[in-house]
Amino acid sequence: MTLIVALDPGPGVEGSRAYEWARRICTEVKPYAAGFKIGLPALLKIGVERLKEVTSSCHAELMIADLKLADIGYIMSLVADELLNMGFNAVIAHAFTGYKDALENLSATLRGRGKLITVAAMSHKGSEEIMDKVVEDLLDVSIRAGAWGVVMPATRPKLIGFGKKRGLTILSPGIGVQGAKPGTALCSGADYEIVGRSITGSPNPGEAARKIVEAQREAMAECRA
Amino acid sequence: MTLIVALDPGPGVEGSRAYEWARRICTEVKPYAAGFKIGLPALLKIGVERLKEVTSSCHAELMIADLKLADIGYIMSLVADELLNMGFNAVIAHAFTGYKDALENLSATLRGRGKLITVAAMSHKGSEEIMDKVVEDLLDVSIRAGAWGVVMPATRPKLIGFGKKRGLTILSPGIGVQGAKPGTALCSGADYEIVGRSITGSPNPGEAARKIVEAQREAMAECRA
Repeated sequence: MTLIVALDPGPGVEGSRAYEWARRICTEVKPYAAGFKIGLPALLKIGVERLKEVTSSCHAELMIADLKLADIGYIMSLVADELLNMGFNAVIAHAFTGYKDALENLSATLRGRGKLITVAAMSHKGSEEIMDKVVEDLLDVSIRAGAWGVVMPATRPKLIGFGKKRGLTILSPGIGVQGAKPGTALCSGADYEIVGRSITGSPNPGEAARKIVEAQREAMAECRA
Repeated sequence: MTLIVALDPGPGVEGSRAYEWARRICTEVKPYAAGFKIGLPALLKIGVERLKEVTSSCHAELMIADLKLADIGYIMSLVADELLNMGFNAVIAHAFTGYKDALENLSATLRGRGKLITVAAMSHKGSEEIMDKVVEDLLDVSIRAGAWGVVMPATRPKLIGFGKKRGLTILSPGIGVQGAKPGTALCSGADYEIVGRSITGSPNPGEAARKIVEAQREAMAECRA
């Protein structure tokens, strides 16, 4: 499976509704998803204790905590311990904070307990201002930290090739609302496409996910032909 | 006042103890602190609802949410809304993710409601690998986003001058356990020093804070003489 669903409750989903929202989408979408990516909006709206119930009921192969950690190693390690206890088995952290006293500590904390995924480029325009210019440095740090995977945007597929060459698993956001079509990143060498609002904003998230997987397959059949 | 206390519960402070821990430190330290900086370790250990009680009982001039946001603008804005609702009046975000579709959105969300503080350099060794090399770019992004303040490390005081020249309020971590002495950053032009473990790890946090403020004053008297 090549779809990861980003569970980010938007402005319309508040308080106790966010919990029901996440549980419902999870159940409907699960047959089509390799995993789920859960970030700060869900954490803050659902709360720590109830989010544990969400991760335990979703329980897909990849349960990714996407807090985009970017702190000193001591803090990232404290946080990773909590995230593993909450039922996550993968943690996203930025590569730009570097290896020494940063990703080196997080990597040690995750060893044997969860996957480290780094961010080396992002889907939005602002990524071009600084991050894209140092993308090779960000990949170097990721490799040095023993990252399993790396986030590279579907919106700028050329970058995906850089990550793929380094032997990293590629996870690509930017599909749907952010502009790229399903299959764009897969055709450029990504392993997973991360889709949020096109699925979670649909009145029928399961059906929306099924259609995206179908569109991915069609795009792959075409680009590999 | 020039002291900001970082409330990060360490490995020994778990579950319901984290809430009592934060409340107690807050009360004892408040007479000496301009504000508090609260990050992911406290959020995950204390939980969202009970953390609101901590922010409302601490209620210092600066209540800083230090999640080191580093995401696309859409996500950072969702998160900032929640943080303001939780009683914070300042939010720390990385400058690394850029202005366009990133800090521009966060800045708009915070306008008139809370202060934007960016990170332009960090206290750990790994900051030298990538961040320090692009520190002027990070300051450019911060200025463009209308940041009120910027985080620059006490451990590398030369960098503080760069931020000060740009007219930003400087908040400096790295005092104490991380190596720099109280007053080091203030003497280099910082407005606040952020201290965590030297205070929160003390059996008498109030007394530890009082001594740090005293050491700051002595250092300032000396360096300004």
